[in-house]
Amino acid sequence: MNKKLIVVLLLTLTAVSMSQAQTSQPAIKEDFKPSVLNQHMQDYPMVNSQGYARFRIIAPEAKSVVVSLGLGGTRGGTPLSKADDGSWMATTAGPLEEGFHYYRITVDGATFNDPGTHTFYGSVRLESGIEIPAHDQDFYTLKNVPHGRVQQILFPSPGTSTSRRAFVYTPPDYDRDQKKRYPVLYLQHGWGEDETAWTNQGRAHLIMDNLIAEGKINPFLIVMTYGMTNDVRMGGMRDFKIEPFQTVLIDELIPYIDANFRTNADQLHRAMAGLSMGGMETKTITLARPDIFSHYGLLSGGTYNPTEIKDKSKVKLIFMSCGSFENPDGVTKAAAVLKEAGFNAVSYVSEGTRHEFQTWRRSLYQLAQLLFR
Amino acid sequence: MNKKLIVVLLLTLTAVSMSQAQTSQPAIKEDFKPSVLNQHMQDYPMVNSQGYARFRIIAPEAKSVVVSLGLGGTRGGTPLSKADDGSWMATTAGPLEEGFHYYRITVDGATFNDPGTHTFYGSVRLESGIEIPAHDQDFYTLKNVPHGRVQQILFPSPGTSTSRRAFVYTPPDYDRDQKKRYPVLYLQHGWGEDETAWTNQGRAHLIMDNLIAEGKINPFLIVMTYGMTNDVRMGGMRDFKIEPFQTVLIDELIPYIDANFRTNADQLHRAMAGLSMGGMETKTITLARPDIFSHYGLLSGGTYNPTEIKDKSKVKLIFMSCGSFENPDGVTKAAAVLKEAGFNAVSYVSEGTRHEFQTWRRSLYQLAQLLFR
Repeated sequence: MNKKLIVVLLLTLTAVSMSQAQTSQPAIKEDFKPSVLNQHMQDYPMVNSQGYARFRIIAPEAKSVVVSLGLGGTRGGTPLSKADDGSWMATTAGPLEEGFHYYRITVDGATFNDPGTHTFYGSVRLESGIEIPAHDQDFYTLKNVPHGRVQQILFPSPGTSTSRRAFVYTPPDYDRDQKKRYPVLYLQHGWGEDETAWTNQGRAHLIMDNLIAEGKINPFLIVMTYGMTNDVRMGGMRDFKIEPFQTVLIDELIPYIDANFRTNADQLHRAMAGLSMGGMETKTITLARPDIFSHYGLLSGGTYNPTEIKDKSKVKLIFMSCGSFENPDGVTKAAAVLKEAGFNAVSYVSEGTRHEFQTWRRSLYQLAQLLFR
Repeated sequence: MNKKLIVVLLLTLTAVSMSQAQTSQPAIKEDFKPSVLNQHMQDYPMVNSQGYARFRIIAPEAKSVVVSLGLGGTRGGTPLSKADDGSWMATTAGPLEEGFHYYRITVDGATFNDPGTHTFYGSVRLESGIEIPAHDQDFYTLKNVPHGRVQQILFPSPGTSTSRRAFVYTPPDYDRDQKKRYPVLYLQHGWGEDETAWTNQGRAHLIMDNLIAEGKINPFLIVMTYGMTNDVRMGGMRDFKIEPFQTVLIDELIPYIDANFRTNADQLHRAMAGLSMGGMETKTITLARPDIFSHYGLLSGGTYNPTEIKDKSKVKLIFMSCGSFENPDGVTKAAAVLKEAGFNAVSYVSEGTRHEFQTWRRSLYQLAQLLFR
């Protein structure tokens, strides 16, 4: 895997943890409600209309309880205070940014998840999750529209000597018109996440359902599988190898999808995109195999340079995006250079967001409207 | 809901927590391997070839760390011992019984999940899970056979003013032969579990894949949805109401399935079964609506009496099962009484198991071979 790309990602991650904005502190409104990601019948964590989060943990004999937000808990901690009933509670110092946030609980130095919320696989472990309602959440909200399905498949993988799991989003009309065939987007998660991330954290299926209901896109399938095929526990990112994943994707998963779903099984109707490390995978594999994919998407996952692409005629779209608190100039300039060189390149900057899922939900919403046109 | 049935279930649950067998203690073999339910690249918890479990938790400043096994942590605790590096470790006092077990970690009086394993929704919260390899695990093992799909659907529910989630297992041949229609089993989870339980804990999809590969059953669909429709947080089981769930199942989910999947949409090709509380739901609803279902299954969920059934001609199968450590005489005698009265009744007792998923995996394996014959 390209060492320069790894450095870019590590710098991006560091920047995220260092650039936590200081927010002003308005008076806190006491209109807290359970986070929509909570387990059934769990009141905490709560979120109010301003975006403050309030946590409550039962730990009668603990000496300290801290909530840490962000990927891998990198965004500092909010210490909780103990009440007479053995519970610990805290409200964040300021409103949280809109969208989905990972977090974790540290009790007397031990890291656990909040028993009140659902868990989400991120940073090579299940993390707690909290959702801050966003001004633009309409596009990923569960609505009374026709819904597609998220189908769990198990496909044979001789390369890794097992059956591997993938999820396939099929649009609402997939099971109605048995003659229709569909293009396919292969969509990758980030480092330490897995094949559940794009639906659980990203709500990719709801974004698609809503776009299709509004007639804004031509329906396509989305295929999501695990992209960290080799064991990276010893060296972290440095031990990551793209080759075993490329074999699974190109030689095993794509032929299985084309044989078992009604796809347009050609390069022109196949896209690959990914967030963060999934963007690096996308760049490496699309450059190595221009015969497989025609539409490329890097979501907070680097940029393409025209000199890297051998055959311009094979590339129908290059989409590059990131949050405005990441490196927006990078994607904007890269798109300009690609356009100058004659590529159909588009950049998108998500306003007021970081290296987090709100950036990637918005990026998918934009990308989906550009694919297979 | 029938008060007698609630009493039966509560007695069963109590019996489970009280009857923990004392096991002899053979020399512990040091061949521990990570549990198959662990998160990617997590070594602990581990299981050895005898069925001993070994837990390890990082909690440098904790005063006590305890692992509690069983539904709701009811099976007593195994205290962990602290090592110099701040980790806590323990091996169970004896081998655990075969199959899937819920457990939880208590750190200084606070209840959390083990950060090493995946979580499973049980007892109205996400619980940690550990898998003890069983002598008969072949029937639910992931094998190199054609695999069906587990399809997540969102169906409109005017009765509860939202879209609700269900999972639909479709057999391997479902997408090949577009003219074939299938019978349907509606399969319910137990108290405090949800629509993910039968696949995550129960491996229902793998049981079906393997049975179909061996030619032991005629393929059918399985539909799994959430059965605790009303909010029971105040009174627990006593506040549970069957009516809102019956409306969702009969008036909303079944019509949606029949409209969107290739089903044999009649009473003769429709079964309902459930484990524990799901068995009570099954009994109540099948007796109330004999026009909807023809095959009934109660898995550790009570029994039918011939006097309760209005029209014998509508019932094609009654299946009742439990673990040998539950109330085996109850299901055996009930089946004898039903047979005497002219019903096609079958009882099944799972040898050496309790009110746990190993009983229900085996029960599904038996039931599937009797359905729609």
